[in-house]
Amino acid sequence: MNLQQDISIVCDNAVAASRDLVTLSTRKKNAILQAMSDEIDSRRSAIHAANEKDLEASKAAGLSAAMLDRLELTNARIDAMMEGLVNVAGLKDPVGAQISRWIRPNGLEILKIRVPIGVVAIIYESRPNVTADAAGLCFKASNAVILRGGKEAKRSNAEIVDALCAGGARKGMPANAIQLIRSTDRHAVGELVRKTGQVDMVIPRGGAGLIRAVTEQSLVPVLKHFEGICHTYIDAAANMDMALNIAENAKVQRPGVCNAMETLLVHEAVADQFLPKFAKRMATAGVEMRGDPTSRTVVPEMEKATDEDWTTEYLDLTLAVRVVPSVTAAVDHINSFGSRHTDAIVSDDVAAQKQFVRDVDSSTVCVNASTRFADGGEFGMGAEIGISTDKLHARGPMGLEELTTYKYHVAGDGQIRE
Amino acid sequence: MNLQQDISIVCDNAVAASRDLVTLSTRKKNAILQAMSDEIDSRRSAIHAANEKDLEASKAAGLSAAMLDRLELTNARIDAMMEGLVNVAGLKDPVGAQISRWIRPNGLEILKIRVPIGVVAIIYESRPNVTADAAGLCFKASNAVILRGGKEAKRSNAEIVDALCAGGARKGMPANAIQLIRSTDRHAVGELVRKTGQVDMVIPRGGAGLIRAVTEQSLVPVLKHFEGICHTYIDAAANMDMALNIAENAKVQRPGVCNAMETLLVHEAVADQFLPKFAKRMATAGVEMRGDPTSRTVVPEMEKATDEDWTTEYLDLTLAVRVVPSVTAAVDHINSFGSRHTDAIVSDDVAAQKQFVRDVDSSTVCVNASTRFADGGEFGMGAEIGISTDKLHARGPMGLEELTTYKYHVAGDGQIRE
Repeated sequence: MNLQQDISIVCDNAVAASRDLVTLSTRKKNAILQAMSDEIDSRRSAIHAANEKDLEASKAAGLSAAMLDRLELTNARIDAMMEGLVNVAGLKDPVGAQISRWIRPNGLEILKIRVPIGVVAIIYESRPNVTADAAGLCFKASNAVILRGGKEAKRSNAEIVDALCAGGARKGMPANAIQLIRSTDRHAVGELVRKTGQVDMVIPRGGAGLIRAVTEQSLVPVLKHFEGICHTYIDAAANMDMALNIAENAKVQRPGVCNAMETLLVHEAVADQFLPKFAKRMATAGVEMRGDPTSRTVVPEMEKATDEDWTTEYLDLTLAVRVVPSVTAAVDHINSFGSRHTDAIVSDDVAAQKQFVRDVDSSTVCVNASTRFADGGEFGMGAEIGISTDKLHARGPMGLEELTTYKYHVAGDGQIRE
Repeated sequence: MNLQQDISIVCDNAVAASRDLVTLSTRKKNAILQAMSDEIDSRRSAIHAANEKDLEASKAAGLSAAMLDRLELTNARIDAMMEGLVNVAGLKDPVGAQISRWIRPNGLEILKIRVPIGVVAIIYESRPNVTADAAGLCFKASNAVILRGGKEAKRSNAEIVDALCAGGARKGMPANAIQLIRSTDRHAVGELVRKTGQVDMVIPRGGAGLIRAVTEQSLVPVLKHFEGICHTYIDAAANMDMALNIAENAKVQRPGVCNAMETLLVHEAVADQFLPKFAKRMATAGVEMRGDPTSRTVVPEMEKATDEDWTTEYLDLTLAVRVVPSVTAAVDHINSFGSRHTDAIVSDDVAAQKQFVRDVDSSTVCVNASTRFADGGEFGMGAEIGISTDKLHARGPMGLEELTTYKYHVAGDGQIRE
């Protein structure tokens, strides 16, 4: 059978599964999630063995140490997958919730009801734990999911999906609710993302290259999770101790993630006061700072920043620094060079806070708090499928609700239109 | 200057305008909308003259009578454009509304706030009144809009946009908040819909060919307004008089629109009772019915339906008819052949109603009401930009709220992440 036929069958099966999924009760879905978790535990040695083979093949293929680390399924990571599934079982079921309701003058009752999206495709790279995490969230929101992982993790992913399906089946999960594209043919993605009318949403999770390639090919709506070029702006009216703590936290608490700060903006009125103290903290933390000419008059040890620094997501202990003359200039910098992800202001001036919140065009805007809080867990969503940098459908952290859509239920007693 | 440069400038201007638009108060926006309406009135004769030229050119080019009718701007249609703008001024401003708010255990306050999408592109066909309607709605939601109308209406569209901009400018509308692509080069659309990071949403309004072409080319998210293959299902437990009235209304009250019924499904238990009476009403209304074999045993005068009839949007006095053995069979027919737009059940059986509402995968599901109610006006939205057949972002009638997105405002007092 050829690839086109394979993908067609996968999509037909997913649509059929999505029809069955809308009929499942919350209780049944939760029992299925628990059974998936249990089955992962039962198959732990098989998962380790498959992962070992993936690791060997990847080492032989010369993958970097960082890539190998992402690929590895330690016992702790298997435990985390299991806990993740149980945790999702404990989350509130978004499906069926009434979003709003109103009555029209002709007596028609209009109900806006939360419903599953239908068929969701997740295209991801090397981390095999995404397989269980994404499948669990999509399933809880009653979506059929089609998974397409990286080829280096193919054995691990297959073993995990087999466990999820076997565990789920014991508790009545519809067939094909969770499917993995096992072919490593790189054309599979292109086929999949052109199945309009069958696949309802595509979420690429991985580097910018993967996301761009999926967007270029897709006819199905894509929810993008692009990079985070996040800023912290220290206003003239900032509390200096708070500013030092927030900026340090945003940079160093976990530099390799999308909500870490990449550029620091400082109001010129407080640059002399703030930057030398902050530079000391950064030196202690091992952070390399790259500054614009004005900031380098205050802290001359800094490297020179080039224009490229304003648009670079370092994901590392590197920080770009710029002195700005006003809130407006800070906002302009962020809207020009940022990635619409997360940006923070530290200020006690309510007018400056308001302007910043209104004018910064990003999914999350923090006032007197670290950018690191832009996260589904920190927002209390329980779990997240990612952080959307798109503006449509879902923006910022995406939890279970963002894996649903709605329908209108118009309830009448014989109304016709005049 | 070449087309690429032209489109680049339009997009740069739109982004700049969108930054200014977020700062406008509701009061100012409403005054601008009123001034736009007034200016259309002042320029009525110029608009008529431009429209006259478009009509002449189109007649010479051999456009159909139906196309010419759509293109014509009668005084009544100009009045309707003016009223539309004033009506939009009277609608509640969605921008800035708090969608939800909660406090985290660490004291962080999280506010989900409604904000403009940014830059919206509308690509439409011959009706020049769409120019004012779409511009008014996008503007009220504080979006910059880029309009691209059909070439046959180019003079009318230019005159209307000139009026909107001149009227708006008098009351302080930001420059380039409303722009029209005046080039009729067919490559303009392709350029426009690839401006990711500048254009945030594309709405094609027109035939399926236009929508498919835009979707094929677009890298920007597209909100599709596809055809409506709407069904009415007469259940075994239907009130017969209500069923006759609702089905008749759905078919004949305005057959040329997307929420009119195209296929009637009748439960086999009531086919003998329902179909002969209904066929009489349809004959009186001049509707041609095309039935499946079972329905033709009851009403032999019907034409034979072919498989093509189940997927055809007639937009005319034609109706496909099928007898089904169960609610489940009706749902399967709708999910297999429908267009996920609007479908109705007539039934007094609560279990059947519930099953239909849950399992039919359409944006609007009507119970004991005509499909013709799937409409922004009938829903009380005040005005609509269209009826989305997509599942993401907006589904069903799209009003002002659906022309917005949201951002998270995280308000702290110095919180950092541990």
